Amino acid sequence: MTWTLYGRSLASRFLLGTAGYPSPDVLRQAIHASGARVLTVGLKRTLAAAGDNGFVAAIRDTLRQSGGQLLPNTAGCRTAQEAVTLAHMARELYDTTWIKLEVVGDEYTLQPDPWELVSAAEQLVKDGFDVFPYCTDDLVTCRRLLDVGCQVLMPWGAPIGSGQGLLNPFALRTLRERLPGVPLIVDAGIGAPSHAAQAMELGFDGVLLNSAVAQAGDPVRMAAAFGQAIAAGRLGFEAGVMARQDMAVASTPVGGRPFLIS
Amino acid sequence: MTWTLYGRSLASRFLLGTAGYPSPDVLRQAIHASGARVLTVGLKRTLAAAGDNGFVAAIRDTLRQSGGQLLPNTAGCRTAQEAVTLAHMARELYDTTWIKLEVVGDEYTLQPDPWELVSAAEQLVKDGFDVFPYCTDDLVTCRRLLDVGCQVLMPWGAPIGSGQGLLNPFALRTLRERLPGVPLIVDAGIGAPSHAAQAMELGFDGVLLNSAVAQAGDPVRMAAAFGQAIAAGRLGFEAGVMARQDMAVASTPVGGRPFLIS
Amino acid sequence: MTWTLYGRSLASRFLLGTAGYPSPDVLRQAIHASGARVLTVGLKRTLAAAGDNGFVAAIRDTLRQSGGQLLPNTAGCRTAQEAVTLAHMARELYDTTWIKLEVVGDEYTLQPDPWELVSAAEQLVKDGFDVFPYCTDDLVTCRRLLDVGCQVLMPWGAPIGSGQGLLNPFALRTLRERLPGVPLIVDAGIGAPSHAAQAMELGFDGVLLNSAVAQAGDPVRMAAAFGQAIAAGRLGFEAGVMARQDMAVASTPVGGRPFLIS
Amino acid sequence: MTWTLYGRSLASRFLLGTAGYPSPDVLRQAIHASGARVLTVGLKRTLAAAGDNGFVAAIRDTLRQSGGQLLPNTAGCRTAQEAVTLAHMARELYDTTWIKLEVVGDEYTLQPDPWELVSAAEQLVKDGFDVFPYCTDDLVTCRRLLDVGCQVLMPWGAPIGSGQGLLNPFALRTLRERLPGVPLIVDAGIGAPSHAAQAMELGFDGVLLNSAVAQAGDPVRMAAAFGQAIAAGRLGFEAGVMARQDMAVASTPVGGRPFLIS
Repeated sequence: MTWTLYGRSLASRFLLGTAGYPSPDVLRQAIHASGARVLTVGLKRTLAAAGDNGFVAAIRDTLRQSGGQLLPNTAGCRTAQEAVTLAHMARELYDTTWIKLEVVGDEYTLQPDPWELVSAAEQLVKDGFDVFPYCTDDLVTCRRLLDVGCQVLMPWGAPIGSGQGLLNPFALRTLRERLPGVPLIVDAGIGAPSHAAQAMELGFDGVLLNSAVAQAGDPVRMAAAFGQAIAAGRLGFEAGVMARQDMAVASTPVGGRPFLIS
Repeated sequence: MTWTLYGRSLASRFLLGTAGYPSPDVLRQAIHASGARVLTVGLKRTLAAAGDNGFVAAIRDTLRQSGGQLLPNTAGCRTAQEAVTLAHMARELYDTTWIKLEVVGDEYTLQPDPWELVSAAEQLVKDGFDVFPYCTDDLVTCRRLLDVGCQVLMPWGAPIGSGQGLLNPFALRTLRERLPGVPLIVDAGIGAPSHAAQAMELGFDGVLLNSAVAQAGDPVRMAAAFGQAIAAGRLGFEAGVMARQDMAVASTPVGGRPFLIS
Repeated sequence: MTWTLYGRSLASRFLLGTAGYPSPDVLRQAIHASGARVLTVGLKRTLAAAGDNGFVAAIRDTLRQSGGQLLPNTAGCRTAQEAVTLAHMARELYDTTWIKLEVVGDEYTLQPDPWELVSAAEQLVKDGFDVFPYCTDDLVTCRRLLDVGCQVLMPWGAPIGSGQGLLNPFALRTLRERLPGVPLIVDAGIGAPSHAAQAMELGFDGVLLNSAVAQAGDPVRMAAAFGQAIAAGRLGFEAGVMARQDMAVASTPVGGRPFLIS
Repeated sequence: MTWTLYGRSLASRFLLGTAGYPSPDVLRQAIHASGARVLTVGLKRTLAAAGDNGFVAAIRDTLRQSGGQLLPNTAGCRTAQEAVTLAHMARELYDTTWIKLEVVGDEYTLQPDPWELVSAAEQLVKDGFDVFPYCTDDLVTCRRLLDVGCQVLMPWGAPIGSGQGLLNPFALRTLRERLPGVPLIVDAGIGAPSHAAQAMELGFDGVLLNSAVAQAGDPVRMAAAFGQAIAAGRLGFEAGVMARQDMAVASTPVGGRPFLIS
């Protein structure tokens, strides 16, 4: 049941963001309930740790207890250079080569900028980082990220914080089909547990989300719900989902039943 | 976490059908993996028990072990009278007042016939049955079923065995909104764990399915997947799913970010 | 290009409702722009003709000019008996055997009540009416309406006035496939011209709508838009829409292009 | 009703591709039936004109008669350099500065390569071309194309020849909202007239398609159907489509009707 990201074996396919929780204690409980072993954290917040009020401590504590892995991110960066600089600071601060690479391409949807992203990824790979690029669902962009040395891809399902689910299942299916063997994680846009299960049923390897838990009525229970849904979707994928039947069009002579289940 | 159907407390919101499994042993394992405590069985098959090859025994054994509940069905009946007759036979045979009432209205889609269904339900309630009607997602039909004494409704998501998921979420949301307090179970059409989670997130009380497990590549693992997905969807519903944001239309001045998660 | 309803040849597949327009003059212009030759009118409004302010006159005038046909409706009736009574009054008043039969089954969605609808249809057919039942998209209900003598069916696409388009294309496709030769008209729920075109592409014979024109920013231009969209959808259906290709899954060896269009 | 592309006023919002028709005569009739005034042509085919069998002559003839405009394309090019070279040849051959810029990024889906596309566009704008880039629906990529001097954008609806319609309406709405004033044309993926109407209702300025006409059962009638659907969608957009109402959730007290249309 374990899987591997950049050589590290993980017991859960759920990657959880740590921003926007009501309190450090709710965050702590939500992490426990989620079962997630990879937690993202925005460096900019940490740098302002004087006003952090205990959130970073909650993240560190739970990681220590679970043996989990921190995944610093470059949220808020607008250029490759800015992201590269922040990534290096994150490596110093957190003592990890893992970096979730975000380069914002639009102030409103916060979508990735493919050009700046590929450029930053290329540099960071050269600098020895294990890069997790937050990217769009474009096949050519994804291939470029692989070409510069990324070993994991994290395409969006929908804009960050929108909760709209998988806006373009076709594009996601295309990525899965055309990039066999590459760990693919849907990152951003997931709103409900069923969205996460759907991503896993498409053959994705993991799900990263934040708002859907942090903004839920009860973040702790929602974290548990997503943990179960991601496991369920993966299990369903592995067990082989049945083929759909149309049934609007009678392909067999009417009078014969399509099948008998009694 | 328990809920109640006709006065009986149940630990799982998953109701599993028992037709079409590769072998009695696979059925047995799938039931265990599912966590389901209510199992449906088609009387017509049981009546041909000489050729049953052990499936009914598997059902009875697992129910005995789990303390679960049998839900005989009238699958294959085409008229109210036929269904009423079969229901009475089922009560004799299985010693239960529970009956899943199916009256086929179309030979190809196997959809319910609303008229025959209401008529049969009315008679069976008078005869002391606890009726679980397999019905369409039509609000007026559902109200008629309640009017004649049904205390549970089981609208379809899609045709039996189609695996298409929830074809008309609007109709299902309408039922949930307009029939508060009535136990509602999506029955038929579910193909993947994400479909089941979606039904639960809509506020439905349970999910009944059969083909999606029996026809899976690995029915036992798929049974477990559905068990988890249904629990996840319920938990998500209770935890309060976040509100969706459009984000295609900039409702705030561009330049300001819609929110900040770092 | 003409088609036939109850023996009457019609030059347009657009049936237009006449309620809720800003003024009689806008209604008059919208009718002209639509090209519709069948206009529905609610009897209850006509009966209050003292306060009608010219709407009925606008309808009558345009019908006289176009050689069109009035289709009185029983909107607002809640029982079969009420609808039958109103239909007889409509026949007296408008001197036509055509009746659009509406029997409201829910005060909020205004959905049809299948039971009262079939009952009223049966009576009205016996009384010599040409019945146009506004019905749900349920196949069994539709067959019952045919059994009692209806020669046209008008299933909903979505609730009246919702503008949601075709909520359940599966159900509509099923009706078209299973009821060949029966004139089928989508009535209610259409919001945009593309919705109407889609209905026609499914093989439906016509579209009836009201709110989408009456509530448009510019009802007259919107009437023209729907007239064109319905004609376009029909023409597309007759011309044979191309088969969809998935293309997410490479079914041919990658490296070969699926086809060449240059 | 006219609109403008690169300073040229056009009477139709339909741009038609000319590949894959059964015969030159069918192509000729389809062009006439479509009302299109802009026709795309693949240079590679023309260069092999010895085997052209009259298709190019049909295109030239109809353009001469209608006063339309040729839009050569670079279909089949895989790099910016290849596309730039071909564009220059097209300018020589057809004596027009217009060029539909295609740079294939994937052999199977034939999707655009954003990097090569922007690079080629930049060069061609410098060389004095009026560039029509066939692009993905990515906002950042679209902005880059504008930045290098494109004055028109042609995002895809779905892969070329797939007929799947608008796979990601969210992305298209985002483009329309965020790029006001830029002529936007949906190019590729349209299968049915309703898809084209939907694109226009979103506020797009035009539709370019080829396979949906060329592969139709009757290309000539289908060309007419699309011409009407595109006009209908535009008219609907201008007339102001009604707001959708949910109606699954009773926001007003039940018992009151949401509105009355009789």
